[in-house]
Amino acid sequence: MQTSMTTVTSLKAFQALVNEIHDLGATQSLLGWDLETMMPAKGAPLRAKQLATLAKLSHNLMTSPDMQEHLKTLRQPSIYDRLDTMSQALVREVGIVFDKSAKTPIELLQEMVETTAEAHSSWVEARANKQFKQFEPVLRKIISLNQRLAEALGYEDSPYDALLDEYEPGLTVKQLDPLFAKLKAELVPLLKGIHGSGYQPDVSFLHEGTFPAPRQLAFSEMVLREMGFDFEAGRLDLSAHPFSSGSSTLDVRLTTRVDEHDVFSALSSSMHEGGHGMYEQGINPALNRTPLASGTSLGIHESQSRMWENQVGRSKAFWRAYLPKLQAAFPELGSVTLDQFYHAINRVKSTFIRVESDEVTYNLHILMRYEIEKALIEGRMKVDEIPEAWAAKMQDYLGITPRNDAEGALQDIHWSHGSFGYFPTYTLGNLYSAQFFNTAKQQLGNLEETISQGQLLPLKNWLNKEIHAVGKMETADTIVRRVTGEPLNASYFVDYLWAKYGEIFSIKR
Amino acid sequence: MQTSMTTVTSLKAFQALVNEIHDLGATQSLLGWDLETMMPAKGAPLRAKQLATLAKLSHNLMTSPDMQEHLKTLRQPSIYDRLDTMSQALVREVGIVFDKSAKTPIELLQEMVETTAEAHSSWVEARANKQFKQFEPVLRKIISLNQRLAEALGYEDSPYDALLDEYEPGLTVKQLDPLFAKLKAELVPLLKGIHGSGYQPDVSFLHEGTFPAPRQLAFSEMVLREMGFDFEAGRLDLSAHPFSSGSSTLDVRLTTRVDEHDVFSALSSSMHEGGHGMYEQGINPALNRTPLASGTSLGIHESQSRMWENQVGRSKAFWRAYLPKLQAAFPELGSVTLDQFYHAINRVKSTFIRVESDEVTYNLHILMRYEIEKALIEGRMKVDEIPEAWAAKMQDYLGITPRNDAEGALQDIHWSHGSFGYFPTYTLGNLYSAQFFNTAKQQLGNLEETISQGQLLPLKNWLNKEIHAVGKMETADTIVRRVTGEPLNASYFVDYLWAKYGEIFSIKR
Repeated sequence: MQTSMTTVTSLKAFQALVNEIHDLGATQSLLGWDLETMMPAKGAPLRAKQLATLAKLSHNLMTSPDMQEHLKTLRQPSIYDRLDTMSQALVREVGIVFDKSAKTPIELLQEMVETTAEAHSSWVEARANKQFKQFEPVLRKIISLNQRLAEALGYEDSPYDALLDEYEPGLTVKQLDPLFAKLKAELVPLLKGIHGSGYQPDVSFLHEGTFPAPRQLAFSEMVLREMGFDFEAGRLDLSAHPFSSGSSTLDVRLTTRVDEHDVFSALSSSMHEGGHGMYEQGINPALNRTPLASGTSLGIHESQSRMWENQVGRSKAFWRAYLPKLQAAFPELGSVTLDQFYHAINRVKSTFIRVESDEVTYNLHILMRYEIEKALIEGRMKVDEIPEAWAAKMQDYLGITPRNDAEGALQDIHWSHGSFGYFPTYTLGNLYSAQFFNTAKQQLGNLEETISQGQLLPLKNWLNKEIHAVGKMETADTIVRRVTGEPLNASYFVDYLWAKYGEIFSIKR
Repeated sequence: MQTSMTTVTSLKAFQALVNEIHDLGATQSLLGWDLETMMPAKGAPLRAKQLATLAKLSHNLMTSPDMQEHLKTLRQPSIYDRLDTMSQALVREVGIVFDKSAKTPIELLQEMVETTAEAHSSWVEARANKQFKQFEPVLRKIISLNQRLAEALGYEDSPYDALLDEYEPGLTVKQLDPLFAKLKAELVPLLKGIHGSGYQPDVSFLHEGTFPAPRQLAFSEMVLREMGFDFEAGRLDLSAHPFSSGSSTLDVRLTTRVDEHDVFSALSSSMHEGGHGMYEQGINPALNRTPLASGTSLGIHESQSRMWENQVGRSKAFWRAYLPKLQAAFPELGSVTLDQFYHAINRVKSTFIRVESDEVTYNLHILMRYEIEKALIEGRMKVDEIPEAWAAKMQDYLGITPRNDAEGALQDIHWSHGSFGYFPTYTLGNLYSAQFFNTAKQQLGNLEETISQGQLLPLKNWLNKEIHAVGKMETADTIVRRVTGEPLNASYFVDYLWAKYGEIFSIKR
């Protein structure tokens, strides 16, 4: 009886502390969103200080004697085993963060936050000037901080493993190397086949003329609404690089960017970010104010964005319903046929910009970043060698060479965020998305037909129920096994690509 | 030597702690801005929790044993007297907040933050429905919390004094009662004279037709730029009720609201908020991350907004330069003469809405709020008696009766913010603004001429130097004496009104 009372008291105090830490995290998330969408330029240095202070206070709470005491109590098997499932998940997930925080020196954390907030402005400027050199000093600092972080967290084989684990718990170089090797082995013949087919879809009508930004944004909003994104619990704004960020299931912020000479890219990135956003909105709201109210891993998160962007947004079924609507918004597309449009948005072509690349080449973009990141963190490459390495790998895998650094190593926001080990989760997302979509088609029976009638909610509801609702209460591996009946299997993605692009380019596997 | 080392160490640690507390305050300010401009509706309950957590952490730091120890050391006369001026001001100002925080129970503070965040949605809804009843339950809670706060802080005569002191340090009912009595005595004859003049300017052209919101916003932005508001260190957005909020001298957020059937009100409120914003931007940036980087009192703050809104924005000199620009933006005003326009924007007419009232009647709006607030806090009036009291006083002072609660007691955002004792600072602002402007005219010599040539920067630079730069290092009383050579004197405001409106309405004092 006494023990039980102590457990209840400790659990309540633990939950309250977790809520406070999560409120600080939600606040940091909002400040980060504001930094990239709304903040006036001169606000950057003080915003960096604010973020550093919040990170410090959050770290202090996470590593406080109170937290240590609560976890010590609640992790005892005799107590842990009698907790409800949600409390067990909370103790487990907070325990992981606690263990990592305990290993991370507070000064390192603060330096990281301050450096990355400065890095953002530096990256924006360097990118505008197309001068990687301008970004080098701060990037050098970021890499050194990541190396120190990896040492602090510990690893078995590569320091890069310690960083991978931050985004995809458990993922290692040992697992990734063969995975990428396999993808490369499958994608090269497919690309060869496509190049050898002699066919390239006409994409000129996607870029001919001017597609006014307000009308593009309105179209994106309309599609997001029909996908089921809740605008009473979210927003869509503009930023230099599209992203989604959520401070709770009830406040999810998406951004996109509009190119007035491209009728498709803003919509495509909106659907992508919408997939992320609907994951956050779809989590059981009872998990709010805890770390369980979040996607279980970046790989699973990316599977949701990729599914809406590609399996849906680049499918013939979707455009059967939406091409007439797009033509109503942009009458200059009036004479385009469904097949012409479907082929155009699925053109396969080596491109400089990862986020504008196609489904076939995308993972080669990730592969080169993976190799460069690994070499940087393992100390086998120096920062000023990046542009050359970038050009060489791009030539090697994609057969093209960027004309300047904005088309090359400055295109991604990730390094300015301090994120190393993040890129590989994009490839995991592609693999998971194909596997989940295959199951959705089996379980929903007529999925392609409903999509072709413009009904997107059956898929959204299925994803809510099967994947979103549990939040971080289940691991990625548990979810994929529960939903699809087997662990991650790359063959669904490869099969999907061969079936789709084999048909478009009239080639056989 | 030993003492001196201890002092230096203590001062540095004190400053670092103050910086952290201020970062939390800046964060709360941004979350508040977001709440009223950007946040999706469903985000409200969790935003309330986030704000409550930040307030709690901030309170914890402010009342921490470390802070107590630092202040104890630094307040010793033998040490304090040897500090530099800025450090002395910091110890003084933080000491005041510390003493107040120490008296305020943390639970009360948290309850206040949570209640007011909820109150905002309640107020927005009640106002949309024009139903004061819907706002009553939460307002009752807010008043009770303010009464508990007053008891905790302590006071001599009225509990309302404890609340006044939060906004205008040292201000009491004893000082305000005769001040308002004097203003009432001076304004009634002026109003009588105006009514008896038989003249009412034609204002129809201000409201005829539609003045598109984007063009109004662009005009407001142009004027703000020419006033000297720095858009690299600030923004202008839309909200239900205009306000300005700053998290530093380098990030100041203004809001306005646009009525497409009123060409003047958005501009006028933009100039008002711009005056507040330029005060914050004008403070010595070395004071950032401390409470010294803020206006010294709400009265002085309001003097800056009022000066730009009225002494400048309703002057003939200003419109000599800007009427042609307004006519270029809105050609339908093309045939309006300078005198017609100047008279129209200075019409004197009893109106329901405080923020739309004129310079002559404005302080009567404040007087009735002052009387109602005092009665509520002193327990002489109940919340459900407000609409009736409102109607009676409005009839008494202004001769009109609101048709519904949106035109009555629901028009102001202040009570939903938990602010009682705030309104009187508006009247102080009017008095200070006239006194400062009188000195500016004397010292700048040709001020009206430069303004009539569209040169607004000489006034802005004078205000920066004389009033803004010191931030909170000097008290309101010190500033007004240093700048104008005497303490607050209501006669400048009364003289200004008589001179201006005597001329417009052809009446003699």
